[in-house]
Amino acid sequence: MRLRNVPQAAGAIEASPYCITDPRLLKGQWTSLFNNENPIHLEIGTGKGQFLMQLAAQNPDINYLGIERADSVIYRAVQKLESDPIPNLFFVCAWADYIEEYFDNSEISRIYLNFSDPWPKDRHAKRRLTSDGFLKMYSNILAPNGQLIFKTDNRGLFDFSVEEMQSNQHGFSLDDVCYDLHADPIRSEGNVMTEYEAKFSANGTPINRMIASLHK
Amino acid sequence: MRLRNVPQAAGAIEASPYCITDPRLLKGQWTSLFNNENPIHLEIGTGKGQFLMQLAAQNPDINYLGIERADSVIYRAVQKLESDPIPNLFFVCAWADYIEEYFDNSEISRIYLNFSDPWPKDRHAKRRLTSDGFLKMYSNILAPNGQLIFKTDNRGLFDFSVEEMQSNQHGFSLDDVCYDLHADPIRSEGNVMTEYEAKFSANGTPINRMIASLHK
Repeated sequence: MRLRNVPQAAGAIEASPYCITDPRLLKGQWTSLFNNENPIHLEIGTGKGQFLMQLAAQNPDINYLGIERADSVIYRAVQKLESDPIPNLFFVCAWADYIEEYFDNSEISRIYLNFSDPWPKDRHAKRRLTSDGFLKMYSNILAPNGQLIFKTDNRGLFDFSVEEMQSNQHGFSLDDVCYDLHADPIRSEGNVMTEYEAKFSANGTPINRMIASLHK
Repeated sequence: MRLRNVPQAAGAIEASPYCITDPRLLKGQWTSLFNNENPIHLEIGTGKGQFLMQLAAQNPDINYLGIERADSVIYRAVQKLESDPIPNLFFVCAWADYIEEYFDNSEISRIYLNFSDPWPKDRHAKRRLTSDGFLKMYSNILAPNGQLIFKTDNRGLFDFSVEEMQSNQHGFSLDDVCYDLHADPIRSEGNVMTEYEAKFSANGTPINRMIASLHK
């Protein structure tokens, strides 16, 4: 089906210069998109993009990419960039599951995972973005000393994620684990909140954060 | 990002029993979804689903699946099924590029491609749904004697597709090629039109159709 006369979101993101809909075409060439050699930080599951928009505005010397599978969701992010462009930020409409087809070995310097789907059923554990299969993929696309920063309000998912990280054999080491980020003035300094985080935090839900780095 | 407080389409298709958002979980088990052993016909790039809704209503002994990558587009199809269910039809929100991860060898009996994106630039030829890489994947998921039926108004894409089919080494043979389907009373008998087809046909654009079958 061609994107003519179709619901607005799909057509708009295909047409937008701010959204990449076939990231495989840029594999190994993402610096050409940004037109500089700055490090690239990637958020997986970027939703409506608020987190990255704030980070990108604060850090013009870092390039940001936000991946989101749902075109109707990322459309909101793209609309915001259309009206108020940020040169060091692009969105990508794609599945995280095939991330190694989008990025070359060591092409990414940091990965953010924010409030990822907990997939609470055991049989769906492999779908969690912090499960071992994903960590293995991240270890390929991340550069040496690259970081993975994961935040969630879901304690079950967090405990699972810490365990996966502790037992990983892909070169990641756990740098920091925090079970109540906002109660810790040092750790939370400079923390950029996602939309969920602001809401959860406002009603007293503790936010968990894990930081790991890659040694390869 | 969890599907709470997100744009309507993404949340609705995740929640709907009529839309499969992770087809890999059903690989080799699609008959259990339909609860019968009838053959499964698949449309790739199903858009708003009108073509399959008509076919499924006409052919209750065939199971239909429609794949569409854009959640904002397939949402329209899912909404229609929500209000007027058809037991032998489900939609799938996923990329066609990974179709072998969704279907087992020989699990599909027929594939429909309707008015697929022509990807006119040479460097995008591999993205065309009738290019050799896709034909190879189709030959794996299609059953012996399975059919591929392709319609388009785009003559450039059609010529390319006929050539790809003629030179394929995956077991497909070309059964029929027609450059003006609607002008041919025998070939067009029983033809179900897509939304695009009705529009193009109304303004006199010829519709091309190719039928191939798989011998393996």
